[in-house]
Amino acid sequence: MATAVAERQTGAEAAGTQAGKKWVYMFSELDEVEAYLQPKSWDDVKALLGGKGANLFEMTRLGIPVPPGFTVTTEACNAYLAHDHKFPPGMWEQEVEAMHRLEEVTGKRFGDPSNPLFVSCRSGAKFSMPGMMDTVLNIGLNDETAQGMIELTQDPRFVYDSYRRLVQMFGAVVLGVPDEPFEEVIAEVKKERGVRLDIELTAEEWQRITERFKGLVVAFAGREFPQDPYEQLELATRAVFNSWFGKRAVDYRNATGISHDLGTAVNIQMVVFGNMGENSGTGVAFTRNPITGAKELYGDYLINAQGEDVVAGIRTPQPISQLQQEMPEVYQQFLEIVEKLERHFRDMQDVEFTIERGKLWMLQTRDGKRTARAAIKIAVDMANEGLITREEALLRVQPNQVDMLLHPQFSAEVKQQAAAEGRLLVEKAVNASPGAAVGLAVFDADTAEKWGREGKPVIMIRPETKPDDVHGMIAAQGILTSRGGATSHAAVVARQFGKPAVCGAESLQINVEQRLFVVQTETATVEVREGDWLSIDGGTGEVFLGKLETQEPDFEREVELNTLLGWADEIRKLGVWANADYPKDAERARRYGAEGIGLCRTEHMFFEEERLPIVQEMIMARSKARRIAALEKLLPMQRADFEGIFRAMDGQPVIIRLLDPPLHEFLPSYDQLVQDLADLKVRLQHYHTLSEIDQALAEVRQKEDILSRVEALREANPMLGLRGDRLGVVMPEITEMQVRAILEAAVRVKREGVDVHPEIMIPLAGHVNELKRMREIVESVAKEVFGEMGNSVSYKFGTMIEVPRAALTADEMASEAEFFSFGTNDLTQTTFGISRDDAEAKFLIQYVEEGILPHNPFQQLDRSGVGKLIQMAVNMGRQARPDLHVGICGEHGGDPDSIEFCHLIGLDYVSCSPFRVPIARLAAAQAAIKNGQSQAGE
Amino acid sequence: MATAVAERQTGAEAAGTQAGKKWVYMFSELDEVEAYLQPKSWDDVKALLGGKGANLFEMTRLGIPVPPGFTVTTEACNAYLAHDHKFPPGMWEQEVEAMHRLEEVTGKRFGDPSNPLFVSCRSGAKFSMPGMMDTVLNIGLNDETAQGMIELTQDPRFVYDSYRRLVQMFGAVVLGVPDEPFEEVIAEVKKERGVRLDIELTAEEWQRITERFKGLVVAFAGREFPQDPYEQLELATRAVFNSWFGKRAVDYRNATGISHDLGTAVNIQMVVFGNMGENSGTGVAFTRNPITGAKELYGDYLINAQGEDVVAGIRTPQPISQLQQEMPEVYQQFLEIVEKLERHFRDMQDVEFTIERGKLWMLQTRDGKRTARAAIKIAVDMANEGLITREEALLRVQPNQVDMLLHPQFSAEVKQQAAAEGRLLVEKAVNASPGAAVGLAVFDADTAEKWGREGKPVIMIRPETKPDDVHGMIAAQGILTSRGGATSHAAVVARQFGKPAVCGAESLQINVEQRLFVVQTETATVEVREGDWLSIDGGTGEVFLGKLETQEPDFEREVELNTLLGWADEIRKLGVWANADYPKDAERARRYGAEGIGLCRTEHMFFEEERLPIVQEMIMARSKARRIAALEKLLPMQRADFEGIFRAMDGQPVIIRLLDPPLHEFLPSYDQLVQDLADLKVRLQHYHTLSEIDQALAEVRQKEDILSRVEALREANPMLGLRGDRLGVVMPEITEMQVRAILEAAVRVKREGVDVHPEIMIPLAGHVNELKRMREIVESVAKEVFGEMGNSVSYKFGTMIEVPRAALTADEMASEAEFFSFGTNDLTQTTFGISRDDAEAKFLIQYVEEGILPHNPFQQLDRSGVGKLIQMAVNMGRQARPDLHVGICGEHGGDPDSIEFCHLIGLDYVSCSPFRVPIARLAAAQAAIKNGQSQAGE
Repeated sequence: MATAVAERQTGAEAAGTQAGKKWVYMFSELDEVEAYLQPKSWDDVKALLGGKGANLFEMTRLGIPVPPGFTVTTEACNAYLAHDHKFPPGMWEQEVEAMHRLEEVTGKRFGDPSNPLFVSCRSGAKFSMPGMMDTVLNIGLNDETAQGMIELTQDPRFVYDSYRRLVQMFGAVVLGVPDEPFEEVIAEVKKERGVRLDIELTAEEWQRITERFKGLVVAFAGREFPQDPYEQLELATRAVFNSWFGKRAVDYRNATGISHDLGTAVNIQMVVFGNMGENSGTGVAFTRNPITGAKELYGDYLINAQGEDVVAGIRTPQPISQLQQEMPEVYQQFLEIVEKLERHFRDMQDVEFTIERGKLWMLQTRDGKRTARAAIKIAVDMANEGLITREEALLRVQPNQVDMLLHPQFSAEVKQQAAAEGRLLVEKAVNASPGAAVGLAVFDADTAEKWGREGKPVIMIRPETKPDDVHGMIAAQGILTSRGGATSHAAVVARQFGKPAVCGAESLQINVEQRLFVVQTETATVEVREGDWLSIDGGTGEVFLGKLETQEPDFEREVELNTLLGWADEIRKLGVWANADYPKDAERARRYGAEGIGLCRTEHMFFEEERLPIVQEMIMARSKARRIAALEKLLPMQRADFEGIFRAMDGQPVIIRLLDPPLHEFLPSYDQLVQDLADLKVRLQHYHTLSEIDQALAEVRQKEDILSRVEALREANPMLGLRGDRLGVVMPEITEMQVRAILEAAVRVKREGVDVHPEIMIPLAGHVNELKRMREIVESVAKEVFGEMGNSVSYKFGTMIEVPRAALTADEMASEAEFFSFGTNDLTQTTFGISRDDAEAKFLIQYVEEGILPHNPFQQLDRSGVGKLIQMAVNMGRQARPDLHVGICGEHGGDPDSIEFCHLIGLDYVSCSPFRVPIARLAAAQAAIKNGQSQAGE
Repeated sequence: MATAVAERQTGAEAAGTQAGKKWVYMFSELDEVEAYLQPKSWDDVKALLGGKGANLFEMTRLGIPVPPGFTVTTEACNAYLAHDHKFPPGMWEQEVEAMHRLEEVTGKRFGDPSNPLFVSCRSGAKFSMPGMMDTVLNIGLNDETAQGMIELTQDPRFVYDSYRRLVQMFGAVVLGVPDEPFEEVIAEVKKERGVRLDIELTAEEWQRITERFKGLVVAFAGREFPQDPYEQLELATRAVFNSWFGKRAVDYRNATGISHDLGTAVNIQMVVFGNMGENSGTGVAFTRNPITGAKELYGDYLINAQGEDVVAGIRTPQPISQLQQEMPEVYQQFLEIVEKLERHFRDMQDVEFTIERGKLWMLQTRDGKRTARAAIKIAVDMANEGLITREEALLRVQPNQVDMLLHPQFSAEVKQQAAAEGRLLVEKAVNASPGAAVGLAVFDADTAEKWGREGKPVIMIRPETKPDDVHGMIAAQGILTSRGGATSHAAVVARQFGKPAVCGAESLQINVEQRLFVVQTETATVEVREGDWLSIDGGTGEVFLGKLETQEPDFEREVELNTLLGWADEIRKLGVWANADYPKDAERARRYGAEGIGLCRTEHMFFEEERLPIVQEMIMARSKARRIAALEKLLPMQRADFEGIFRAMDGQPVIIRLLDPPLHEFLPSYDQLVQDLADLKVRLQHYHTLSEIDQALAEVRQKEDILSRVEALREANPMLGLRGDRLGVVMPEITEMQVRAILEAAVRVKREGVDVHPEIMIPLAGHVNELKRMREIVESVAKEVFGEMGNSVSYKFGTMIEVPRAALTADEMASEAEFFSFGTNDLTQTTFGISRDDAEAKFLIQYVEEGILPHNPFQQLDRSGVGKLIQMAVNMGRQARPDLHVGICGEHGGDPDSIEFCHLIGLDYVSCSPFRVPIARLAAAQAAIKNGQSQAGE
């Protein structure tokens, strides 16, 4: 992040010896900038001039008509901030000199009523960020030049509207006057006049408002609004500099990891007016369609209007193609310019332009924002056009944009339509879990569950969620909360279960008791009651009233996406596997491009309705013989599961993990049993007939029996208790059944002609002797099964690495295991000593919010702690067994940053949920491209 | 463990090319042995000849009268075992040849009735171990030589007694006949004769018994008792070899880590007879008093008796000093010999001797077993005498022997007295947890708890214990079981709670239903019923009937121990600090030699009776303000605690750890509250008066209030939840109060003239940012306190390292922390992913028993996993901060093996419970001595 520029400008000499330094560059002086920045890169230019400034310089060099101006560099800003808020020596003089050059170029004079020059002043840092100083337009206007302008334009209403805007913007942005009093003054005047719209106010009223605004400045800032144009300029420059350390900007930089050393530049530019008659106008345009990505000019313009009028929606703008009729020459020029810009910047451009009396001015160009679908199409198209390389195309798409295409979605049209109908209730809350969901509003988990069982789609709405709410969340189509961010309980659970979620929608006033929420939209106050239809877009954070139509994703039909992922596959070094527990998941994973199953969890099969009673029978068994009898009933069921998965993954490896969770998870909860018993005993007192009492007593005895087993299995810290391969040591018969099911299934499908590659994975091992023991069981069962069936399959034996000790002794573990799979969820829990279930609600969110942790380590792999452990384990493991196959199967396997880390440390593959397989393919390719030279390690 | 010898004898050529090899050495051939073993060490000699054999060779070289004989080497044993139980080529020929040389030396002939030679055959490995083949005496006796001996001695009773002993021993040990039938025959004959003692049987009866014994051999072994002396010899030799892989021997070697490659030697030695009249005799003696350690000859002898008669207790032996009167010349010779032996072997010797017709024969010498007290005194005395160095003296005492001196004990006199009175019920079971305990026998946990509550001391007796028994064990003074070893549940729990325990006392027949046990002592069958007094010595594994007087330890009076520990202090590199929460603990720690407090846990103070309600008030507080009000009440109490500890530790550092446990630990348990509420609600139905109902409802509301807070604080895995410094982040006011209490206390005692060195330690930190946050709080409170008090103290800021992430990022942690203290309990839990509370009962014991874990990692630090992490952290931390002070404060700080590891990786100190401070001082010195050259790491 530290650039040559940043280094050059820090240090004590900055203010002292840099007196002769050049702090100010005209837009036309890009050569000088580049000469100063030797060796120069575009990144360095942006660091010195800010992103906005750099583009203005670049456009100027390209010969594109840009209103002339100059930039005060970020170095000046840093020198100012480092030295007690004093301009560095020579800077102000250079700025004044630049104004004189601007006067020469434009033929106007700053502060001269007879031919006044007006300028805008904007901040512009290397990266655009919120909280920096907004634009101040029309600097140079004062009582005198206003008068001069009226004489020149004969439009006093325009002039006073412009003047009051300057006072308002300058007051708010530069002098720190609050916004509201300005708005109140306008409202009052409108009320006096009995009108509703600004446009209905007259020149005199705008003049009066300007005067009252000046009074507000005196009242709130304790000083007069400056009449001296140069004082306006100086104060605006200072204000931009100072805004670098504004609270919102600092918070944003902390949150996004942008360095505080960059500083901001100041851009001073001649103001041009699009509202000087029918031969003037203003507009915005994209060089390609930002919604679909189609290669077509896309935008709007207004004749005789100012920039903000286009977006204010007061008059209906014309589509950009219309300009061809109205001003064919200007349109032709515009077409050439934007084509040039796209070619030059090698990306879709979002441009602003103004036509002043028939002359086209380009005010801004920047890379255009676009939908996920457009991002993919544009990247693929541009690569096919030869404008960018395939590698660049791959880097242009955010992995999470791929995610958006693979959840049900609302089309842009549907959303635009709903918004036009005033049904957009929340425009932007936290996009906590992607996808579109439509359902009936419910305000508690029990109702959600009940309605869900009745087949009704529901959106569960809570101020925030707790573990008690999870049963309702699972039953819901989507989740909506008014509190909490991307790591809140609701967000985490939603992502875990693949439920779309919008969180932290603070504008909702939720009343859980009355089962409703109230929200103020731009146009109305809306009340939503239980049972009303809602539609939420978890990928954007939008909430709509009513039932919006969703689009099902169809991966095969996503032509551009598949093209892009095909390119990704050619480049990536990491394999991409999937976590799948059922044949249908395995099939989907394969369709989405998975190259194997990295984690098949056998316990999910245990939870299925018809199996759970048998599993409970097995757990409640008082003897090993009875336990074995129950296991024998489970065997054919497990075997059938495995057969299905093996068939789906014909030709590819399938890693099956043996039973992992503590057994009490399969029994009713202790609390529930205690409560049930207490209730039963209360009821007992009310029974009178013998048969009633007998029946109740029998029930008591049965519950007590289960309770005693639950009590025996109960643990203070179940995550660290009797689970994983510890179960296999204590009750080897469970392991034996599972291994038998796997190998019998493998032999059976092999007979059908399936190319089967089973791999048996041991959970939670922490000592090589555990692996030895498990391996003995596996080998002995294999011998039995292959003997019985007269046929064998080759299989692999490996281990999860999910406790630190396994990683620390990876060389020993590798002596028994042919493969490692890092279970990064548990490994993160044990390495941090943090239980995810407990931590997220109780302190982890606060940790992330307060910057104690840079991110939630359960979402993004903690490179310096957990990652270090993984790296050690990989190195030690491969030293002990050079052909050791290594991957990860935790939730991080689908997180792009974590995938990059896996690439860097040379894992063989990542395994993630089937839905994230395409994301992982792209992320893995990006990691390979970004780290082409440094694959050996960071 | 692999010696030159072991290496030399393995390999495929052993049997093939070693035909010319020497497998048999006469006792007089030590020079030849040494010439073969170039370079030789005493260890190599023992490895080749076994410990017993080596000593016989050595005594022979010293000119001490040892009955002549020879040794078949361990190499022969290994060659035999490696090659299908065939003697290696030439071995048997050499053994026969050695017999001929023995005949020459003794002037007798093997199997010659006219002048028969008899030999004994014994096993003898490098380390003595149980389960190896016992002695077979009188080899060479058969029908013919028996007749010859009768003619020579004119004592047919002696001859047949000897003959039947050979048949019995040979049958049992060599031919695998069970013992019982032999004993039954003798019992039958006695019954027929109506006598009770062996000695009452006649020559004819012994002859008859001998014949019946031969019949037993035919019946059980399916062959005749061999009459050929050489066949006897050959079979006995094979039996010794085979016994190396006997089950008990294998188990013992597995348990103690002795290599299976060592093999055993066979010692063949001429039998001498101490029962050849009044000028013959036999005895045993120690060169120093093995109970007190006093420098005096200690032992007994019997005139006209055989070896086993001395210990059989049939005739009362004479004290050894009596021999001076009876045989002054022999006594003088004996004195000179044992002095020579002690000087030569440089340790207290335990010798066996026989006088045959006025000639003294030394049968055996070995280092004598001794009590803990004697071990210490002998080591110190010998060092003072110049016999050994101080380093050797330090290595002669086991750290756990020091422990025994510091628990209440039975004096040796009291135990001797009780044994003389026939009250020694168990002489040696597993000494599972040291200390003496006296109490009433109880046979179940509930009774133990009930009696304990009534103030009665109890000894809890169970065949073995389970987790349900723990409440009784806690209430008991001591624990006694008939099954299980040093890692059984009973042993583990007992050590955890510091309760003396004797385990695996297999001779007890416990009948839990009838609440009694029966035990067969040497003299009687004793029945012990519930309520009878018992005394157990957990340090030795002894159990006594009745109420033995205990001695409180008095550390200052233990002169030799203090001398020894003084030497230890000069040698050790590790500091020894103590964990102490109260002033009285700190005082004791200091008396025991602690150099600082390494861990003062502030939460224990919170649990005290008068404070707990205030702590609960703080936790129940609905607002921060109320919480602060409660904390303000706690402040003066905490401050007073700290003042006391600072005064006790005047001049020494005191590390105080901020609050660590989750807050719900201070509230009633969830289960209890649910149960209480259920009960209350049942009761409510029976109330009739309004006031009763009102009162009950108020109680319900109060409980529900607590319950809701407990529910909010409840965690799935509290060990990994909101605790440690996470509390300090979420509720900084708690940290502020604690820091204030520490620093106010420090300033106050400083004003009194105390030299105070407070160190503030942060628990559970896993990320450097947590330390940054905590350090800000500490520094800001310090500034406030020092300002208010107009005085300051210097203090240190540091952290525990108890989650793997802290260790993995130790370089970052050291940038904030001035010291590290490894909390090895939690670090072991998180590194293994094992909750100790859950694991020990549910699977950890099984893991250790089945050898999956080499030892319980909560008792002995796991060097390869947890230890590796600690070593990494120390290295990284010191790189970042070269003067980083590093220690450990987990339970391992008092475990000798763990202390050695701390020494090896260069920690600054270990901190342990005050009672273990002396142990740690010794263990640290031993570590320094043993690893003088390798301190940089293993």
